[in-house]
Amino acid sequence: MRNTVAAFLEQAWVTNFIIGVILFNAVLLGMETSDTLMASFGPVILTLDRICLTIFVIEIALKLFAHGLRFFRSGWNIFDFAIVGIALVPAAQGFSVLRALRILRVLRVISATPRLRRVVEGFVTALPGMGSVFLLMALIFYIGAVMATKLFGNGCMEFALEGCTPERHAQLLEWFGNLGLSAYSLFQIMTLESWSMGIVRPVMEVFPWAWAFFVPFIMVTTFAVVNLLVGLIVNSMQDAHAEESNEKTDAYRDQVLSRLEAIEKRLNER
Amino acid sequence: MRNTVAAFLEQAWVTNFIIGVILFNAVLLGMETSDTLMASFGPVILTLDRICLTIFVIEIALKLFAHGLRFFRSGWNIFDFAIVGIALVPAAQGFSVLRALRILRVLRVISATPRLRRVVEGFVTALPGMGSVFLLMALIFYIGAVMATKLFGNGCMEFALEGCTPERHAQLLEWFGNLGLSAYSLFQIMTLESWSMGIVRPVMEVFPWAWAFFVPFIMVTTFAVVNLLVGLIVNSMQDAHAEESNEKTDAYRDQVLSRLEAIEKRLNER
Amino acid sequence: MRNTVAAFLEQAWVTNFIIGVILFNAVLLGMETSDTLMASFGPVILTLDRICLTIFVIEIALKLFAHGLRFFRSGWNIFDFAIVGIALVPAAQGFSVLRALRILRVLRVISATPRLRRVVEGFVTALPGMGSVFLLMALIFYIGAVMATKLFGNGCMEFALEGCTPERHAQLLEWFGNLGLSAYSLFQIMTLESWSMGIVRPVMEVFPWAWAFFVPFIMVTTFAVVNLLVGLIVNSMQDAHAEESNEKTDAYRDQVLSRLEAIEKRLNER
Amino acid sequence: MRNTVAAFLEQAWVTNFIIGVILFNAVLLGMETSDTLMASFGPVILTLDRICLTIFVIEIALKLFAHGLRFFRSGWNIFDFAIVGIALVPAAQGFSVLRALRILRVLRVISATPRLRRVVEGFVTALPGMGSVFLLMALIFYIGAVMATKLFGNGCMEFALEGCTPERHAQLLEWFGNLGLSAYSLFQIMTLESWSMGIVRPVMEVFPWAWAFFVPFIMVTTFAVVNLLVGLIVNSMQDAHAEESNEKTDAYRDQVLSRLEAIEKRLNER
Repeated sequence: MRNTVAAFLEQAWVTNFIIGVILFNAVLLGMETSDTLMASFGPVILTLDRICLTIFVIEIALKLFAHGLRFFRSGWNIFDFAIVGIALVPAAQGFSVLRALRILRVLRVISATPRLRRVVEGFVTALPGMGSVFLLMALIFYIGAVMATKLFGNGCMEFALEGCTPERHAQLLEWFGNLGLSAYSLFQIMTLESWSMGIVRPVMEVFPWAWAFFVPFIMVTTFAVVNLLVGLIVNSMQDAHAEESNEKTDAYRDQVLSRLEAIEKRLNER
Repeated sequence: MRNTVAAFLEQAWVTNFIIGVILFNAVLLGMETSDTLMASFGPVILTLDRICLTIFVIEIALKLFAHGLRFFRSGWNIFDFAIVGIALVPAAQGFSVLRALRILRVLRVISATPRLRRVVEGFVTALPGMGSVFLLMALIFYIGAVMATKLFGNGCMEFALEGCTPERHAQLLEWFGNLGLSAYSLFQIMTLESWSMGIVRPVMEVFPWAWAFFVPFIMVTTFAVVNLLVGLIVNSMQDAHAEESNEKTDAYRDQVLSRLEAIEKRLNER
Repeated sequence: MRNTVAAFLEQAWVTNFIIGVILFNAVLLGMETSDTLMASFGPVILTLDRICLTIFVIEIALKLFAHGLRFFRSGWNIFDFAIVGIALVPAAQGFSVLRALRILRVLRVISATPRLRRVVEGFVTALPGMGSVFLLMALIFYIGAVMATKLFGNGCMEFALEGCTPERHAQLLEWFGNLGLSAYSLFQIMTLESWSMGIVRPVMEVFPWAWAFFVPFIMVTTFAVVNLLVGLIVNSMQDAHAEESNEKTDAYRDQVLSRLEAIEKRLNER
Repeated sequence: MRNTVAAFLEQAWVTNFIIGVILFNAVLLGMETSDTLMASFGPVILTLDRICLTIFVIEIALKLFAHGLRFFRSGWNIFDFAIVGIALVPAAQGFSVLRALRILRVLRVISATPRLRRVVEGFVTALPGMGSVFLLMALIFYIGAVMATKLFGNGCMEFALEGCTPERHAQLLEWFGNLGLSAYSLFQIMTLESWSMGIVRPVMEVFPWAWAFFVPFIMVTTFAVVNLLVGLIVNSMQDAHAEESNEKTDAYRDQVLSRLEAIEKRLNER
């Protein structure tokens, strides 16, 4: 019985049908964002959306029945389960965040099509190799955020500094007032967005030496990001290289070695 | 007769003449943008432009005659045909877009010079390998646009939130009012242009948790773009590697194997 | 005695304990940035911080005792010594910079965990290979800063130029008034942050040919940065390539050569 | 006589002395930007600068004497000659551009130190390989500039469009009023600086379909730049690869082939 269900779910037309439902559902969720469309066809769209959801729930229930607890051994199954689960949580009227999360259902296209699945798996397998650099960047960010908060987070009022206006003081508190705000501002600075005209120049009007903190921060984080990129390239290249070159080379080497062996054997015979 | 025409068109001086006409036409179309030049030499420029166009039409007509329907089997021929076709559509006085599209004629330089042709063909052949990542990015953009529209697209008036001013409300509608606007804003955010000072900080004044949507969006799309780049590099490298290293190596390997064979044969003879 | 202490410090639980203390200290230093937490638990946090510092001092003192002056032969030891040393300098009340530098203590995690250590060592060994390009960029920056200061650093008042307003004049002095300001502005321009709308367009309102200085500057520095990146990638790739491919290939080659030798020997025997 | 002079110029202490003079001159030219220093030591600085220049002129005169017209066969010699030549042109009082160009003399450090020379030669040899892509980008820029000028360069007054204010009209003329302005604006857009908030969003207030021009422009130029980068990486990698791997491999291959030859010869002997 279980095997019949499992075999049924693996048929080509079933998986294609599910992909079709996901894409149709994606269009429906897109249409829900239009007030005009919702005013005219609101009930139809919502009913169709509910039908799609029902199909997903049935599919996952069948999979659970077919595979039992082994279902949860695959990361992709847990992914599907969580995404459909979100949609089932009854969203209160005013709690629009959960309603917005429903669109995440469209991500099921990835787990349903092997090609996209492989791309995402490629991304995920690339992550551990970058673990150390990520750790290092987290460290740099934490240190940077603590320093920025200590240096600029109290504003400039207490120092009675030249160039300190109430607006400047308020901006400093807004940018570096606590660890979270500082981390966000440093992330912005790392992406180089308005780092100078937007943040550092105004800060320098009050603390003229601020560049000595921000310019090295930019250099270090940029260098770390570049090293992440270089690591990614080198890894992919090695994988590609190992795969490609070895097959032909291995065949050639086996041939050379077996021939040499044959010659030696022949010489020993006599 | 057909072959004579085809042979005529393939002569070096004919193709060079056509390239000359294209470049001359490019200069003319550039001069058309200057009001001063048009005031003094307008009729001359327009007449010369018309002569250039006539030459192109004759060239394509001859090619069509020479090759018949096989003409449309080459992508570059279709490209030339479409570009010259645009110029023939009679542009109404006020419809400046079609007039502006005439400059696309200059793109014919690409199809006419083998060197540029190869570069563009290199670009185009690189595209399919990036297909899956493009699909994935389209998916991320669609999901992001739906979420942004649902979360921020209704402005902030209905929530009576602290920090919601009429201007802020209007800005939210302008940035995330519908799927198209959201997709455009997300594209801007992906390019990191004014993402924080321009968009996310103002949004956070009304929805303080907005960073939890935008920062992961930036990280995911940047990571996907980086993977596109890495894929491109690895592919080009493999192509280059395969081409270059094999010739010499293959010659060596053939030599080794044939020598081993000769030795074995010799040993077997006795 | 010295050897006993050295062996004690190298035990796994000791190094793990030190890493634990560093991380605990990092959390404490993060908590110090919060006014609320400091108001309630200030004395506790400061006492714990002092205990952490004492542990670090004892550890370094023991290391100094165990290794004597050889301690200073390792770059990482000097790094630890300097970082703990900063924390011991008595910070005057108003001198917040030194207080902020205490967080650098967290960097000791790097020297204490071999994995992070290797990443940083990888960064540092990559630097000398980029030395020439760095030198070249320093040269370009110096030349650029001198030129910008000479061209724009005196403002526009003396020329009675069209488009010169007192605000424009003040901005020019602020951006390019001396070598340091010019270097900072050029660094901003190199990162492409607001280079056009923020700096070059306003300058061009007074000096219409300013683009002829800034656009080439952007191209040259960007090209140099790209070459830095390319150099990094090629170096890492070569290192990775050399390491990986040689082991297997060397084994194969040794086998082929020894077999050929054996055959030759055998043929000579007779 | 000529040979004596040539040998004298190639002595280590002479080249080091020239490098020293160049660096000393660089410091002098940097000091010239400071009004305070010029007020106190102006005459001294200017005299020292003149002495440096005299030394350069003598050096080049000696080189010219030693090598005759062959002097101009080396690109670096022409480079030195032009740079020193600029400094000799008598700059009129108000013509500050030529005075600013004097700092280019510092670039002689590059031609004088072999290490920097090699880096720059590496850059220059990389350029021809990118020629086709540069040509293509020039084409895209020309076409883009003509289209932008035709579409937006006449402002919006004549269309009586909704959203067209006199300020908007003036901005459009300023950004896209002629081919040069359009090319500059497109260069800014290609570097992604303020492309959306600064340029495209304001344009879209008048021409809502403007994104259909700018977004593809960004994608095409970014893709071309990425391909430039990929080409650079692949080329450097191949060069590095060819150099490194061949030496050892060639030695091995020669050994294998000569041994096989010896075996065959031995077998044929009998």
